[in-house]
Amino acid sequence: MSRLLSTAPAADGFHMPGEFEPHSGCWLAWPERPDNWRWGAKPAQAAYVEVAAAVSRSEPVTMAVSDVQFEHARTVLPAEIRVVEISTDDAWIRDMGPTFVVDGKGARRGIDWRFNAWGGLDGGLYFPWDRDDRAAAKVLEIEGADRYRAPIVLEGGSIHVDGEGTLIATEECLLNPNRNPELSREELERTLHEYLGTEKIVWLSKGVFNDETDGHVDNLACFAAPGKVLLSWCEDEDDPQHEISADAERRLRAATDARGRSFEVVRLPSPGPIEIAAEEAAGIDAVEGTLPRGPGDRLAASYVNFFLGSTAIVFPLLDERHDDEAAEILRATFPDREVIGVPAREILLGGGNIHCITQQVPAPVHR
Amino acid sequence: MSRLLSTAPAADGFHMPGEFEPHSGCWLAWPERPDNWRWGAKPAQAAYVEVAAAVSRSEPVTMAVSDVQFEHARTVLPAEIRVVEISTDDAWIRDMGPTFVVDGKGARRGIDWRFNAWGGLDGGLYFPWDRDDRAAAKVLEIEGADRYRAPIVLEGGSIHVDGEGTLIATEECLLNPNRNPELSREELERTLHEYLGTEKIVWLSKGVFNDETDGHVDNLACFAAPGKVLLSWCEDEDDPQHEISADAERRLRAATDARGRSFEVVRLPSPGPIEIAAEEAAGIDAVEGTLPRGPGDRLAASYVNFFLGSTAIVFPLLDERHDDEAAEILRATFPDREVIGVPAREILLGGGNIHCITQQVPAPVHR
Repeated sequence: MSRLLSTAPAADGFHMPGEFEPHSGCWLAWPERPDNWRWGAKPAQAAYVEVAAAVSRSEPVTMAVSDVQFEHARTVLPAEIRVVEISTDDAWIRDMGPTFVVDGKGARRGIDWRFNAWGGLDGGLYFPWDRDDRAAAKVLEIEGADRYRAPIVLEGGSIHVDGEGTLIATEECLLNPNRNPELSREELERTLHEYLGTEKIVWLSKGVFNDETDGHVDNLACFAAPGKVLLSWCEDEDDPQHEISADAERRLRAATDARGRSFEVVRLPSPGPIEIAAEEAAGIDAVEGTLPRGPGDRLAASYVNFFLGSTAIVFPLLDERHDDEAAEILRATFPDREVIGVPAREILLGGGNIHCITQQVPAPVHR
Repeated sequence: MSRLLSTAPAADGFHMPGEFEPHSGCWLAWPERPDNWRWGAKPAQAAYVEVAAAVSRSEPVTMAVSDVQFEHARTVLPAEIRVVEISTDDAWIRDMGPTFVVDGKGARRGIDWRFNAWGGLDGGLYFPWDRDDRAAAKVLEIEGADRYRAPIVLEGGSIHVDGEGTLIATEECLLNPNRNPELSREELERTLHEYLGTEKIVWLSKGVFNDETDGHVDNLACFAAPGKVLLSWCEDEDDPQHEISADAERRLRAATDARGRSFEVVRLPSPGPIEIAAEEAAGIDAVEGTLPRGPGDRLAASYVNFFLGSTAIVFPLLDERHDDEAAEILRATFPDREVIGVPAREILLGGGNIHCITQQVPAPVHR
C-alpha cells in the first residue's frame, strides 16, 4: 500500500539521502522497445542482466518487466532477483522511477515526479510516455512507501544530492523550457528544496556533449561523499566535452556546499569519442516520434554514469583505452566497495548508462 | 524473488492449510473485460471495492490490476489496500492464482497450476488465457514465495482441503476431459496428494446447477473446520439443485475423512433461482470465443461461495428472502468471526462469487 500525501517532504521532516548512504535495495526496468534498442533489445537485455547480477552482489534487486517480456526476463535473470510486472514506455527507472526520501526516524516515502520523456512534445525522446509516468506509483505500492506526487516535471538523473543540504544540477536540463516553463528559476529552486529537503543548489551549466536528456547531471558529475565530487573529464581541448567539463570544474571550485565546505573534485577520464556504428544503427526500428539513431552519431559516454551501491560500484566498461584507469580511480575513491565493471556499450546505444537504469531504495535512517 | 522448484510440495514437507487457518493476507484481481462484465465492468468494480474493503477488516489485501485500470483502481480502492500491476485475462484469482502451501517450520511456498480458462478449447470460457496463466508466478514474486509449477490443469476453486489430509472436489470438474484427459483418476489423485499434501479425496458428483466452471466445489461445499462441511442446500424437489445437494450430502454422510472422522454437514440455503435480466445481458459486449450471457440464463448462485478470513466471513448478499438466514447460519458456524454481507449480484453476473475472486495467503505455521 502507498498513501497519496497532500503535503511536501521537507515540511514533513523528510529529505533525499546521498546515493553513497546505505541502501535497502535497487530497482531496474527491462528494455524492450525495438525502436530504441537494436535487434529487438536482446543485446541490451543481456547487458541489463549483467548489471542486475552485479548490483545484486551489493543489495536486493527488483526488475520491473512488462507482461509480454515477463516469462523471458524471469528465465534469463538470476533467481535471486525479484521480477515484478510494471508496464513502462522504456527502461530508465532512474528517470521515471520514484525518488526516495527518509526522515531520520525510520520512515521512508517516495516522490513521484511528473515525467514527460525528457522534454514532452518539445524535444522529448518518444511519445506517449504515460506508462513511464505511472511507474513510480507502482514501485511505491510494492515498497509500501507513501507517495508525494510532485507538481513539477523532473527526472531522477537530473539531480544529485549530498544528503546534507546540497543539490547539483545543470541549467541545460532543469531550466530547459521543455520541462517546467511556467516556473522561474527561483520558483523551481524553492520546489526542489521543498521536495528534496535541500537548502542550496550548485548549478553547473551543461551536461555531457550531445546528451539527449538535455544534459543530465548524472552523466557528468556525482557525489562520492559530502564535499567530494567525481567529474567526467576530457583532456582533449579540441573536443567540445573539454570546455563543458572545465566550466563545471570551475563552478565547483568556486562554490561551497550547504554546510559551507569547499568541494574536492576528482577527475574521471572520459572514454574516447564513441559513435554509433552503421551495423548498430541498422538493427533499430524506424518509428515516427522516437529519436532516430544514425550511424556516426556521437554517444554521450561517461564513466560517471555508474551505480553507487551499498557495498559495490557497478560502472560501465566503454573503451579499452580508459576502462582500467576509470576502475583505478573508482577503487581509490571507494576503497571499501567492490568495483565491478560491466560491458555497457549496448546500454549506451540506448541513450544512457548504468546510473540511468538503476534506482536505489535507501535504507531507513534512525538518528 | 521466487525460485522455480523442481520438486513437489508433499515430498518437501509442505501441505495446503485449511482456509479457516490464520492468513497473512488476501489477493484479488480487478474486473475489466467488457465481454464478461456489463457496462464496462463499472458495477462489478464497485462490488469488488466493497469485497476488498470487507476483507481488509480481516487481513491485508492486495489488488492485482492491469496498467490500463491502475490509476482508476488506485483512486476508488481504500488507501489501505495495496494495488499492484498484474495483467490478467479476467478477475478470478481463486482459480488462476497460486495455491499456498506451508511446512510447519515457518516456510511458505506456492503452487502455480496450469490454467486453461475452465476447459481450454473444449468448453473453456474465453480465449486466450495466457495472462491468467502467468499471474500466479507474479503473485509469488511479490510474496517472496518459491514456486512449484504443477504438471496438471487445476483451478483453486475446484478443491477444498481441511489441512489435515482431506480434500473435497467434484467429479464433474476434476475428471472432466477438458482438464487433464491424459490422466486416469488414480494418476490425478496421486498428483493432487503430491502437491497438496493430502491423503484422501472425498469425491462429490456435481457442482451447483448450471455452474459454468464445470461444477467447482467451492460453489457447493466448503470446510468450516476439519470434519465440518457447509453445503449449499435446496429444499425445492422440483429444482435440479435439490438432487445435486442431496447426493453430495449422502456422499459426505457416508464418508470419513483422512483422520477417520465422520462429517458434520451444515446446510446453507440456496438463494432462490436467480436469472440474468434482459437489461443486465444488454450491457455486455458480444465477442466470439467468450461465453455469451443471455437474458433468462440461470445463474449458479450460492452462499457457500464466501471468503473465510482470519477474523471475518465475507459472504454474498444475493436474495432478500434468504440473505438473513444465510447470515445467521454463518454466524452460528463461525462465532468468533465478524460476518459481513456484501451485495454480490454483479459478481454473480460475471460467473462466480466472493470465494472465486479471493485468494488467501496463509500465515506461516510453526509447529
